[in-house]
Amino acid sequence: MSPDPRDEERGLPVHCATRTLLEGRVFDVLATELTLPSGIRQELWTVEHPGAVAIAAVQANGELVLVRQYRHAARECLVELPAGRLQRGEDPLAAARRELAEETGLRAREWRPLTTFYPAPGFASERMHVFEARDLQRGERALDLDEDLEVLTMTPGRIMAEVRDAKTLLAAALLLLGR
Amino acid sequence: MSPDPRDEERGLPVHCATRTLLEGRVFDVLATELTLPSGIRQELWTVEHPGAVAIAAVQANGELVLVRQYRHAARECLVELPAGRLQRGEDPLAAARRELAEETGLRAREWRPLTTFYPAPGFASERMHVFEARDLQRGERALDLDEDLEVLTMTPGRIMAEVRDAKTLLAAALLLLGR
Repeated sequence: MSPDPRDEERGLPVHCATRTLLEGRVFDVLATELTLPSGIRQELWTVEHPGAVAIAAVQANGELVLVRQYRHAARECLVELPAGRLQRGEDPLAAARRELAEETGLRAREWRPLTTFYPAPGFASERMHVFEARDLQRGERALDLDEDLEVLTMTPGRIMAEVRDAKTLLAAALLLLGR
Repeated sequence: MSPDPRDEERGLPVHCATRTLLEGRVFDVLATELTLPSGIRQELWTVEHPGAVAIAAVQANGELVLVRQYRHAARECLVELPAGRLQRGEDPLAAARRELAEETGLRAREWRPLTTFYPAPGFASERMHVFEARDLQRGERALDLDEDLEVLTMTPGRIMAEVRDAKTLLAAALLLLGR
């Protein structure tokens, strides 16, 4: 990648050269040489991720529909919102409908964007789009063969006390704040 | 790494073999072969990160002290809580005191743990420890040479509307909820 001369004018770091260190099924790793506004040169590694969606599916009783699964990165089972990666060029809302149906068997009639954020911008490009889904109907689950999920429900208050996943905590907090 | 026979008894996936794909200054990447309870074998890549701390430093007027910096992973400048990686074996609170002083020049007399979470447990091992800091005193900043940070302040309400970083949004939401 050649440097964009406008970057220097805007006071942004100029990136001079990018190498691909790894190409994977879920993410790639790039090494980029940056010249900071201070003149210092730095090689920075980034995890390049296609982005993801998560769904805060709210039942009529106010509880959220969650999934419990083994997360090898954390070396433990975690409780999280249903979620999944964006496919290339996929619209986030379409991905959210797909993931909710695949992981829980639920369809929702009401959808709205709840929040969008970077989970770990220090090293990962991933953007997470969270949708709120209401007016839920039960359908068939269609799990990927490599998914092993248990579906459960919790109130937002219990999530704040017991869950340890960023997107799930933030969604529960936003619902408690009435946003 | 040889499989732990207790994992199978507990219904957890058994991991059979781990290869190191990359070793970096900030993170490593491992490939692990897992056998899921369903019997399916899977090779999973994980970003192995030492963990991090972030500080919700609350001024007497209720505003949080934030830093704005270029984040190459996001390809943009982001506003975030002061934060940094844990050094090997470092106590999270000690790291939080160090990072707050380095990035903002502030010391705090009151500290309490606010929340701990996994930012991106689908692929990254990172655990983030967020502390609330109050009764702030101004000191000297001691930035690393490769850090180029602007210090600013915002109310928790404005953070919820304008910021796009997970740890910062979650800390602001927790403060608004009075937790």
